[in-house]
Amino acid sequence: MTSLETLGEFGWIERISNIIPIQHENTIKAIGDDAAVINIPQDEQLLISTDTMVEGVHFDLSFHPVAHLGFKAITTAISDIYAMNGFAKQVLVSLAISSKVTVEFLDEFYRGVKIACKKYEVDLIGGDTTSTQRGIVINVTAIGTQKPRRIVYRNGAQENDLIVVTGDLGGAFMGLQILNREKAVFAQHPEAQPELGGYEYILQRQLKPECRLDVINQLDALDIIPTSMIDISDGLSSEALHLAKQSNKGMIIYEDKLPLDDLTRDTANMLGYDPTTVALNGGEDYELLFTVPQSAEEKLRNLPDFTIIGYVDSPVEGSNLISRGKNKYPLTAQGWNHFKE
Amino acid sequence: MTSLETLGEFGWIERISNIIPIQHENTIKAIGDDAAVINIPQDEQLLISTDTMVEGVHFDLSFHPVAHLGFKAITTAISDIYAMNGFAKQVLVSLAISSKVTVEFLDEFYRGVKIACKKYEVDLIGGDTTSTQRGIVINVTAIGTQKPRRIVYRNGAQENDLIVVTGDLGGAFMGLQILNREKAVFAQHPEAQPELGGYEYILQRQLKPECRLDVINQLDALDIIPTSMIDISDGLSSEALHLAKQSNKGMIIYEDKLPLDDLTRDTANMLGYDPTTVALNGGEDYELLFTVPQSAEEKLRNLPDFTIIGYVDSPVEGSNLISRGKNKYPLTAQGWNHFKE
Repeated sequence: MTSLETLGEFGWIERISNIIPIQHENTIKAIGDDAAVINIPQDEQLLISTDTMVEGVHFDLSFHPVAHLGFKAITTAISDIYAMNGFAKQVLVSLAISSKVTVEFLDEFYRGVKIACKKYEVDLIGGDTTSTQRGIVINVTAIGTQKPRRIVYRNGAQENDLIVVTGDLGGAFMGLQILNREKAVFAQHPEAQPELGGYEYILQRQLKPECRLDVINQLDALDIIPTSMIDISDGLSSEALHLAKQSNKGMIIYEDKLPLDDLTRDTANMLGYDPTTVALNGGEDYELLFTVPQSAEEKLRNLPDFTIIGYVDSPVEGSNLISRGKNKYPLTAQGWNHFKE
Repeated sequence: MTSLETLGEFGWIERISNIIPIQHENTIKAIGDDAAVINIPQDEQLLISTDTMVEGVHFDLSFHPVAHLGFKAITTAISDIYAMNGFAKQVLVSLAISSKVTVEFLDEFYRGVKIACKKYEVDLIGGDTTSTQRGIVINVTAIGTQKPRRIVYRNGAQENDLIVVTGDLGGAFMGLQILNREKAVFAQHPEAQPELGGYEYILQRQLKPECRLDVINQLDALDIIPTSMIDISDGLSSEALHLAKQSNKGMIIYEDKLPLDDLTRDTANMLGYDPTTVALNGGEDYELLFTVPQSAEEKLRNLPDFTIIGYVDSPVEGSNLISRGKNKYPLTAQGWNHFKE
């Protein structure tokens, strides 16, 4: 294994700037100067967001493959650009790592970064590599662009708009429970092989999540501009309440409409979790939650990526879940609060 | 003291988004959505850079006032935008902090952020607050703009160009030595008062560094566009070698031209450091180092902020220091290498 000291910080920067090719002609200068330089198309606005992942809080290296971690760092950051209905174009990746980290570790991390950059057509244009006394902190800044009239904020939901969610919910959370279970078994029985077979879908949702560029492209093709949108990092309930609060509206969500994959449901039942709670509060699925006028229903109805789960209510009604038994329960944000863990 | 748990992450975000007013009309949406939204003037390009500061590596809370730390996080990040001859407009601030950190700590940190944002006319438009198991990691992304023909890269130095440095060098390094000295005294004699009187200038250089927006404004007013430029974070030698390497040139720097403040020189002599070495390798001064055609000499000669310290040589000559005794020594990068500490 090669220590980072051997290579030095600038040796390392040269190494990564040669790994990942630039895809956008608007990336004028990437890694290698004091700042990166970008052209913004004349009729578009800049979208920018930043995300931090901390070892021991957001990821566990005892089961998170390093390349998947690099992939996830990119997809979770650019998901915020898609959540504005924008197109992600560039990322900056900052790593604070112990000097004990090897070059092989970084090569593997950036292999994942490269796969995500290629798949989602974003350029790695900069970053910063510094040392910590212990642990790893990853920070990714994502940059995108969109025409002003197509940018979607959280505050535009209108009463009677439909609430739509993409993909399925709760998988990432159940994947994490399986990983934690196997980690606990391993702690007791180091000779045991982890039993991960059959859980591939929910493990991928946790360890190597995709993000929904395909949805942004579909909305564009369908000529649908949502009235409000957010990505689901903290859980459906929590994100729906953000849209409700910032739009000054209420939300009605139907339990029987919540999209769950069969594996998520079966694993929840097996491990003693309520599947509805998992779908509402699981978090980390990086699906999109948005509202659209009712006129969009026809266009969305038969598309497998979209599920209409409710409608926007008046603010005096608040935000509520309608259960299978037709009872009304207030929606509460029980998303992942890292400060409470 | 108020724990962060009491406020919660979203409570905290609401709190900071109310602290700092937005100054630029091109900041369309700051904190509070999935991403910030910015207008880029039609004839300008975007400049973007990111910087990380790690507790115990880049700063020591036992002597770094928290508000100064917030100020320094901003100035050191936007310095990279000035180093491109650009104007900084916005910043995103990400904090990874232990849940033991109090609201009072964060209020004090953001008080420093606010002072820097106001002074340098940048808007705080986003960020991320996450927990760590221990220690603090601060990441600031700085955004600026400039007309393409005025952006200055590291690779444009021409033979016989003059090498110019702003302000004075080595102060931040000597300030740190004084702080470390007093910390060592305190460890032995907890009842002793730190002896910091008289060192104000170099302590400020270390703890609350300014950055050179005034220089960018002066260059603009003088209608001077440097041929290459970099900011001095790692030390003059190291940065001069970057300009030399990326421009494929050599550098001649004269020892007797190096600008040192009297206090820096006196403190170096008192503590047994060679003042020239301190000026060459001290780092963290956040002054600007640039090259200009000889025709600019007349405009710069009598301005107190600028010192001509040498000239650009041919690449076959390499980069060298001419000592007071007229000897020639190869310049070497002995800047702060965090991986070696």
